[in-house]
Amino acid sequence: MTEGFSPGLENVVAARTTVSALDLERERITVRGYDLIELARTVHFPDVAHLLIRGHLPNLTEQASFCGALGTHSGLPEGVIDILRRLPRETSAMDTLRTGLSLLAGWEDPHVLADPSPEANEAKAIRLLARGPSLTANGWRAIHAQPTLEPNPGLGFAGSFLWLIQGRAPDPEAVSTFDRVLTCYAEHEMAASTFAARVVASTMADLYGAVVAACAALKGPLHGGANEAAARMFAEIRMRGGAAAAEAYVMEELWQGHRIMGFGHRVYMRRPDPRAVLMKEELDALAERDPEARAHVDAYEVVAATMEREKGLYPNADLPIGLALMLIGVPVELFTPIFMCARIAGVAAHVIEQQADNRLYRPRVHYVGPEDLPPPDGFAPSAC
Amino acid sequence: MTEGFSPGLENVVAARTTVSALDLERERITVRGYDLIELARTVHFPDVAHLLIRGHLPNLTEQASFCGALGTHSGLPEGVIDILRRLPRETSAMDTLRTGLSLLAGWEDPHVLADPSPEANEAKAIRLLARGPSLTANGWRAIHAQPTLEPNPGLGFAGSFLWLIQGRAPDPEAVSTFDRVLTCYAEHEMAASTFAARVVASTMADLYGAVVAACAALKGPLHGGANEAAARMFAEIRMRGGAAAAEAYVMEELWQGHRIMGFGHRVYMRRPDPRAVLMKEELDALAERDPEARAHVDAYEVVAATMEREKGLYPNADLPIGLALMLIGVPVELFTPIFMCARIAGVAAHVIEQQADNRLYRPRVHYVGPEDLPPPDGFAPSAC
Repeated sequence: MTEGFSPGLENVVAARTTVSALDLERERITVRGYDLIELARTVHFPDVAHLLIRGHLPNLTEQASFCGALGTHSGLPEGVIDILRRLPRETSAMDTLRTGLSLLAGWEDPHVLADPSPEANEAKAIRLLARGPSLTANGWRAIHAQPTLEPNPGLGFAGSFLWLIQGRAPDPEAVSTFDRVLTCYAEHEMAASTFAARVVASTMADLYGAVVAACAALKGPLHGGANEAAARMFAEIRMRGGAAAAEAYVMEELWQGHRIMGFGHRVYMRRPDPRAVLMKEELDALAERDPEARAHVDAYEVVAATMEREKGLYPNADLPIGLALMLIGVPVELFTPIFMCARIAGVAAHVIEQQADNRLYRPRVHYVGPEDLPPPDGFAPSAC
Repeated sequence: MTEGFSPGLENVVAARTTVSALDLERERITVRGYDLIELARTVHFPDVAHLLIRGHLPNLTEQASFCGALGTHSGLPEGVIDILRRLPRETSAMDTLRTGLSLLAGWEDPHVLADPSPEANEAKAIRLLARGPSLTANGWRAIHAQPTLEPNPGLGFAGSFLWLIQGRAPDPEAVSTFDRVLTCYAEHEMAASTFAARVVASTMADLYGAVVAACAALKGPLHGGANEAAARMFAEIRMRGGAAAAEAYVMEELWQGHRIMGFGHRVYMRRPDPRAVLMKEELDALAERDPEARAHVDAYEVVAATMEREKGLYPNADLPIGLALMLIGVPVELFTPIFMCARIAGVAAHVIEQQADNRLYRPRVHYVGPEDLPPPDGFAPSAC
């Protein structure tokens, strides 16, 4: 069983799926037959979420009903807020979201919670998707002893999310950028978080548990944490003088052997990430309206050019998204939770598919440890 | 990429490991060079946990220090109990444990939490292992509005765990059986829960998140949930008349196309699970001391013989363990949480190993969905 071992399961097929695929030849992300970037340009995130969870783009009736459900379930049970207020103030926003997603299972009807049918999973997925923004923003407010806010579904999903984060009526252009960020993050084939969720779902454990596992994985600096690192880098470069200081910053980091987050991707390798291409256009639009944004986007271009020259690597989605979220005034601690809220749609689609035709994930190992060890001389069991 | 697809990653090697292996030829479970069943017979669970987490069986000094650490950290922060009391009463014991493990991250020093070094991971693993019993038993007490209990480390790890569950000084023979159950559950190569934890850990997310993902997976009826199903079956058979009714019960279930939980295993296939062989001896010992246990164990033998004759399947660990836990008076809802508390040791060993020489898990898919769909006629973005 040794020779077939592929560390990180690189290039191993882990599922047959109708949800999505990274099409490297055409340099596009196919989501249920559509180009994800085209979707980001032409429809809103809730349409993409419907496509993922229910399998097709919604008609007018379905749009009304899906938007209605997202609004109806956008609030949190009072008991959830009460609990989040009691978490230690040191709890990170991602840990707060993970705990919140986990404890929400207690507010589901136990029969629906345990029901792995596509219908029950869809219903649970819509409730979790609806509650993500309030869990993220109000969890963060609760931890920081700030008053929580009621969602405002009249602003749309992206608009209400920004409202909950910022506590003021959001700028329509910021909402449009934010909506595209959500679509870019909605689904990306067999990312580690989605894979963790499918493994959990394959035990026929419930959707909440699978989404909690995805959230746990997304926290990792090699996964969702990269957008935060990108934003912190641009803030640092701006302090050092912006575009003029960007090349020296990158060279110094590389010289010190540090990894520049937001570049390269296991699957894309040395090709551009289509989401990064789209989001660079969003950055350009932000730069046209605001000189401070212009300064950051100029630095972005220098960083990208330097990395291409030095390492042959292109930006992945996290580089421009991290900068875009910073420019529209989202606190950095919330970047990865926002990623997770969008990805609930894709993860749920994978869980629904997994449980509809399940096979338990149970791979093997290549054991390279010792064999037939004798117990140490005079070994006696511990007293505990 | 299609032809290599193995559903459920059956027989795919997912890691090179020194933690453990199922040795099918010798019909044994190797844990860091030792036979797990021999360990169950000769040492205590904390020794096995030390072997897993720290890589070797402890010497006398290490035993004292490890037992001391398990005792020191056996209590829960007051804030944790306070939160668990506020979970809805419908929350299952496994969901309570999952939420509890997740929120405990907020009580770690943030630098230690984020530190993936083996030293920091070992320290966190010992704290989580120490807190599992109180989280399980007191979480369940809190949900049921019962007073919580303080751990009693003087009774040993297994003894204190039983004390927390039962609220009375445990019978020494029950403690011995319970200790062996914990060792049987401590580690089992690349089970779905361990695999989910390794996938999460491979993003360099923290140990708490990885353990939370394992807990989410273990809840599934195809995984940890099987011991509960086994106990419920034996309770049902006893009500119908015990051993005399057992064959008819099994035949009726099979006739109706139901699955009898606690039989067969992906890896062992049609061979005996060594843990089931050991635990059957424990059942025999329990039966010698108590006629009610005798009645159940007689039924166990009929069920096992019927399944071997009809399906060619042997009991896996969950069948005798489910019955043994029932016979020593553990509430059925706590069986899977107890499994998880023991498995924290094995999962932590895998996480430590994964993060010490990491490669992100990022497999691919075989996409079988549509391509190049046009948007539906007259499609306009949703209003939300």
